[in-house]
Formats: sequence, C-alpha cells, structure tokens
Amino acid sequence: MSDQPARRQLSLNLFINGVGHHEAAWRHPSTRVEELFTAGYHHELAQHAERAAFDAIFFADGPVLSPGIEFNSAAHLEPILTLASVAAVTTHIGLIATASTTFYDPYNLARLFATLDHLSGGRAGWNIVTTAASAAAANFGLDEHPDPSERYARAGEFVEVATRLWDSWQDDAVLADRATGRFADPSRIHPAAFRGEHLRVAGALNAPRPPQGHPVLVQAGASNEGRAFASRHAEAIFTAHQQLSDAQAFYSDIKAGVERYGRRPDQVKILPGISPFLGGTEAEARALEREFNELTVPEYGLRQLATLAEATFDVADLDRPVPLDVFADAGDVTDNNRSRRQVVAGIVRREQPTLRELLHRLAGARGHRVVAGTPEQVADTITEWFTHGAADGFNVMPPYLPGGIEAFTEHVVPLLRARGLFREGYTGTTLRDHLGLDRPVNRYATAPETEPALAGV
Amino acid sequence: MSDQPARRQLSLNLFINGVGHHEAAWRHPSTRVEELFTAGYHHELAQHAERAAFDAIFFADGPVLSPGIEFNSAAHLEPILTLASVAAVTTHIGLIATASTTFYDPYNLARLFATLDHLSGGRAGWNIVTTAASAAAANFGLDEHPDPSERYARAGEFVEVATRLWDSWQDDAVLADRATGRFADPSRIHPAAFRGEHLRVAGALNAPRPPQGHPVLVQAGASNEGRAFASRHAEAIFTAHQQLSDAQAFYSDIKAGVERYGRRPDQVKILPGISPFLGGTEAEARALEREFNELTVPEYGLRQLATLAEATFDVADLDRPVPLDVFADAGDVTDNNRSRRQVVAGIVRREQPTLRELLHRLAGARGHRVVAGTPEQVADTITEWFTHGAADGFNVMPPYLPGGIEAFTEHVVPLLRARGLFREGYTGTTLRDHLGLDRPVNRYATAPETEPALAGV
Repeated sequence: MSDQPARRQLSLNLFINGVGHHEAAWRHPSTRVEELFTAGYHHELAQHAERAAFDAIFFADGPVLSPGIEFNSAAHLEPILTLASVAAVTTHIGLIATASTTFYDPYNLARLFATLDHLSGGRAGWNIVTTAASAAAANFGLDEHPDPSERYARAGEFVEVATRLWDSWQDDAVLADRATGRFADPSRIHPAAFRGEHLRVAGALNAPRPPQGHPVLVQAGASNEGRAFASRHAEAIFTAHQQLSDAQAFYSDIKAGVERYGRRPDQVKILPGISPFLGGTEAEARALEREFNELTVPEYGLRQLATLAEATFDVADLDRPVPLDVFADAGDVTDNNRSRRQVVAGIVRREQPTLRELLHRLAGARGHRVVAGTPEQVADTITEWFTHGAADGFNVMPPYLPGGIEAFTEHVVPLLRARGLFREGYTGTTLRDHLGLDRPVNRYATAPETEPALAGV
Repeated sequence: MSDQPARRQLSLNLFINGVGHHEAAWRHPSTRVEELFTAGYHHELAQHAERAAFDAIFFADGPVLSPGIEFNSAAHLEPILTLASVAAVTTHIGLIATASTTFYDPYNLARLFATLDHLSGGRAGWNIVTTAASAAAANFGLDEHPDPSERYARAGEFVEVATRLWDSWQDDAVLADRATGRFADPSRIHPAAFRGEHLRVAGALNAPRPPQGHPVLVQAGASNEGRAFASRHAEAIFTAHQQLSDAQAFYSDIKAGVERYGRRPDQVKILPGISPFLGGTEAEARALEREFNELTVPEYGLRQLATLAEATFDVADLDRPVPLDVFADAGDVTDNNRSRRQVVAGIVRREQPTLRELLHRLAGARGHRVVAGTPEQVADTITEWFTHGAADGFNVMPPYLPGGIEAFTEHVVPLLRARGLFREGYTGTTLRDHLGLDRPVNRYATAPETEPALAGV
C-alpha cells in the first residue's frame, strides 16, 4: 500500500462538534456559541469544507442531554435534519449523521436516510451507533440500558432490515409511464419481510431506492463487538488512536476481518481522528493549545474523569500525579467505557501526568489524537499514518470552529496536495464517489437494469 | 366574526401532495413526476408559495407504502427532512409536517421538530396524526394496529411529553457566559419526568427551547376522538367538507369545544381543504377537470373505493348508478374510515352518480372539496366560507403542481387581496406570526425572563 502513494488518495472528513472539539472552545473569543443552534452556522462550516473538496462533514449524536451541560456547550440540533438543511446549500460534500439502532425504529430511520440521500443527490452517510450513554434508555421507556451484546445483536438486525428497505425498490421499479397509467412495477418492489429476535418489519419502503443504493455505512465502536460489527457492515470507520503502532494494529485487524467476511479491504476506509492546533512554529501551536487548556473548568473535567474512572477526584489533587492504578481495568465497566479507559490508561502510563495535565490532555478531543505543530509537522503525521498502514484518511476534529478548520484548509491541505495525496477538487458527485466506494448491487436485481425513470436515481 | 372582514385575515396554506392532489396528476403532461424525489422540485413550490405570502406549506405522511403504487405516484420523501431542506432556501413561509404519534418515540420526534424550528428560525408546525392505515403496524413490529381509542390515548400522552420536552429548557436556560465558564443554568432545565400508561420519558431535551416555544400543533382527524383531541390540543385544524352547512357545524362545534377546554377560540385556526380547477370561464374550468378525470385508471379507483366501502365493484358497472346502500354505516369500520365514508355517502345521496362519476368525484382530492370555476367564483366561495363562520382560511390543495398553485396565486390571490382578506406580504417571521397565534408560555417560567443569550431563540 505504501508503495503507491501517488495513486491512493486521502479521505478528509470534517467532524463538526458544536463550536469545536476542545471542551472549552465555546469560551474562546473566536468561537460563536451564540449561533450554535442556527442553520447559517452549519451552512458556513459545510461550505468551507466543500470549497476544500473534503469528502464529508460528520455529526456525532445521542438522544440524551449531557450531564455536563452546566460547563459545556454539549447540546445540539438533530444531525440528520441539520444535514438536510446543509444539503440544500451545498452540491458535493458528503453528509454523515450519527443515529442509534437502539433508540430508533428501522422503518423510520431507513426513511430518514433514504430521504437525505434523495435530497442531497447521493451524499448521505449513516454513522451506526448503539448508544453507550445509559441515561438514554430512560428517555425511551426502558428500565435498563441494554448491555452491549444485546445492543449489537439488535444493531445487526437493524442493518439487515435497513438495507432490505433500501433495496425494496429495484432501481428500475419506477415506470412513471404516462401512456399506460402505470407508475411503478409492483413485481420490482419487495417487502422487507424481516422477523428477527429484536425487530420485525413487514413492508417495503414508501420511496424509491436512494441514489447511492444505500447511504454509506459508517461505524465507530472500538470494542470487540464494535470491531466485529465494523468488519462485517462498515464502509468507513472512525477510530481514535494516540500512537502510530496502535493505529496500525487496528488497521490490519479490521482489514483482515473485512476479508474474513468476504469483502474487499479497499471498500472499507479507516479514518482516525486528528485534532490539530496549528502555529507558524511549534511553540506557537503549543501556546495556542495552552490558551484553550487554560479555559477549561476543572470541576467539569473532574466530573467527566470520575465517570470514566469510576472513582472520585479532588480539586486539591490537581497538581499531584495521577495514581497509576486508577485506570486499571475493572470487570463491571461497560465495553465502550473500557475502550475509552484504555486510551486514558495509556496516557497515564506513558506520560505520568499530574491530574491537571491529564485533564488538559483529555480536554482536547475526548481521547482522539491532539497534535500541536506547524502545518508541515501535521502534514508529516498525516502522511506517515497514511503511507504506513494506519489510515486511509482522517476525521479532522478542529479544536475550535470555524477558525480551526480554516487554518487546516489554508495551511495543511495545500501541503497534502503538493505531495499528491489529496485531490484539487471533486471528481464525482456522490459520497461513494469521493470515498471510492462501489454502489451496492440491489439484492433483488437479477438482470442488467434499464435506465431509471427518475431524476437523480 | 363576519362583521369584521377588513381586520380578520385569511390563512392560506399550500398542501403539497406529490405532483398534485388529483390522483391522475402524474399522468398530465404539465406535471413533473420525474422530479418528485428531488429537493429542487420542493424548493420551487415552497418559494412560489412564499412569494405569494402563504402562511405555510404542508405535507401529509404515513410510514407505509400505499397499495395503489402501481397506478398512483403515492410514494414520497420523509416530510420533516424535506422541510429542513426547504427551510434553507426560504425565509418566511411556515413548514408543517405530518408525523405519527403511534409510530414515533416522543424523544426522537420532539427533537426533530425542535430542530426544524431552530433551523427555520421559528417556522415549524406538526400535523399530529395517529395513522389510520392499519398496514403501518406491521412495519413497526406490531401484530395488530391499535384501535382508535388506544391510538388517541397514546397521542394525548405523546403531546404532553413533547410539550414538556420543548419546555424543558426555559427561554433563559442558556447562559453562554464565557467569563464564568457556565454554559447553562441547570436549575432552568427540567426533566420531562413523564410516566403514563403508554409512554415514559425521563430526561430533558438535549437542545434549547425552540424559537416558537413549540411548533404549531396541527390536527386533521374528523372522528369524535379526533375532534376532542383537536379541541384540546390543536392550534390549527385541517378539515374536509363538501358543503358550507357541514363546515359551519364543524367550525362551531370545534370553537365551542376549544372554549370548554379553557382556550381562546381565536387561537385555533380552522382550515378546510379546497382543490380548485381554474378557467377563464366556468366551462373552461370544467373542461380542465374533465381532462384530469379522463386520465384516471378505473382499476385504481375501484380498488380504493372497495377499501372505503368494504365491498367489491366491477368494471362492468362503471356506467350504472352507485347503489345507495353501499355506503350505509357499518359497525366494524374504523373511525377514520367512517368519517371518510360519511363524505362519500353524502355525495352518493345528493348526486346519485354512476360508478364512473363517483370515481371522478373522488379522484380530485380524496373527499376534500373540488371546485371548478373562474377565479371570481373560487374567490367568492372562499370569501363566503370565511365570512360565514365556516373557515379561518384554507388548505389549498392544487389538483396538479406546479401549474395549479401558479394559477391560484396569479388569479385568485389578487382578488382576495382586493377584498382586503389576504395580506400583501408577511408582517412577521414565524409561523405563529403568520397565523396570529401566541407564543406559548413555558410551563416552568415563574418570573419575567431575561433576554435569551442565543441567536434566534
């Protein structure tokens, strides 16, 4: 792989998290938290990323209010709708929304993503999550949050149902034949007819097949269940790694898993997160990172850390070293917590930080890799990971917005282009085009299909 | 009411049903069924209605594929998302989407509508339905479709939960105080804490209160349960009447019901459907209607009629009179079917049509009032209903699109303006402004609230 750098192209994705991924971004004078719940703010970010020919923008999501809301701007609009709004003012950029298989009905969610793909002319992606936040369950009438294995069992059925629904209309099911009065050929429309352990869905979707066949399936879970699910279903994977070696191990593990499922490894794109602080010199970049770290509210960080560690921390200990044993694995943590704990345990082991230093390390991007450096240094890191079997591209997680993405597209993207690693402009119109993913064949297609009768389908 | 015609203003709403409300609209050369699943088609219609200062556009919906798809273009995009797309290319027009309380979780749906209201700067409306189509149940894992009383019981709880969620952030809950690091005041954020018979929702919404307080609540059920529900909850009501006297009876019944619930009658707008064929002369208008009727596929119409009548019909009988007893009330029909049957029974009784004539009568707008006439005649009908206690405005249901709405705005709207019944342009920015509805007071508000910290909130 690393011997074809001129032909293989990076995927770059803008992960939009409110006014930035740094937890204190909203306090920085350059960010515009007052506009967080407006369409215009999101339009501006998406249009900026589109001008740089990014593959997609992406929103995380969970159907529950963050308990840290007092000190963190962790409220947000529903992402599928926000992307429908963005779709109307953009023409090329991919639109990836997170949605939960645990807390949605598949018929509703398949419709929402099919609609987003139609409205955007084939630019939709679905980041499939099972929702780790246990407080969400009580928003949906459940007494207990389903455990990870049950959540993933439902998720597997959910993806099967959703893909059946997206396939339910063959590409040539719409006739729109004014002369005969036949709008659709019922023999080319197929009921989902799914009866699983968790889900039952009888009918066909009430809209034609989406332009991309189905939205690009994205996944981000790092647990064992998450990796197995990703190997089987995902077409793109968002992942968090601090170290090249960890990222390489994950990359080979997933690509091997993908092959075991009889899929082509190049049809699954692995995109680690990177949260860059950029400066004219490394010292300037580090000073910028420090400026944000100094805006953090320790009370907030300690609460977050307490949840992760299942231990309590005291403000009085901020300048003492974090005890090495606090992040040892416990048997009763949830799987998702465990994979995030592993990241934190690695930081504590390698860097032996004070509590304050650890909070600052975690303030950046919740376990994703924060880099502070010159554009050349950041481009070097990206190039190294891309050409050494650790990444097919990156999920760019600016610590602050819009400034952080502006700095990246202005200073880093030109370097990547000069190295032949990133396109000058779009060469296709769909998210699948940008990522180099095939359009899935409809499971009911038996013969070469005729030209569809509908625009954009 | 009729003695203040100069001050009271009509509400006009564009009900977008694919390429028109006439069942054969898609076969007409003027319609563009090929664009039915594109954003651009919907943008164009919404922008047209906005130039005419209409109150809103509206989409019906149901989470199930119509069995008549072979002969009817009865497939469609999900309306909330479609309206989010429309919101991005419009500035004033209201955006009303139908969504089912039977087949959505309230936390998800409350978020979707809160987001639509934020993205549009306060233009969202929710047409609350319980979904009469029994086939939908099997798309959601249910063995049986809940009966109307159970559906309405759940709907009542659903609206209570949804309004609690929309109120969960007081208008001044967001502090966004960079200096202190406090983003929100947790004492001004309230959990839904709802435990009903059908629904349980624990937490608060994960986004601030929508600009309108909550989306405008719309309702359309004509059954007894539907009327009681509307009197209690609805702020606008879509209704179907063939005759002035029926519309007047409905109007007084609802306004009286509204008062019984302690609500102000002027805070509930009653909007009958009207589907106009316009011509330079009445004969031209009738010829246009005939042109569409002749495009109908009798096989389709007979199937629809069979479902409604719970009887079978034969193509050989098309030119014989419809037996008067076919639409007598039966005990086991669903309530929704019963209210539609009553409309059809009235037509059969009054007009004694042949089967073909009845199919043509029903081809227009599924029981809504079809009028064929000159712009003056249509404006006269609208004026009569508006000034004689039958309507606060109209849900305009063009038989074909975009031509039918273009004819209406070009020829009828100027007459209504000349009579002082319809505004020249918008006087406000939200859907509540257009309809003359108050912004609901937050149930948790105790003192005069300070200025909100967020744009558009």
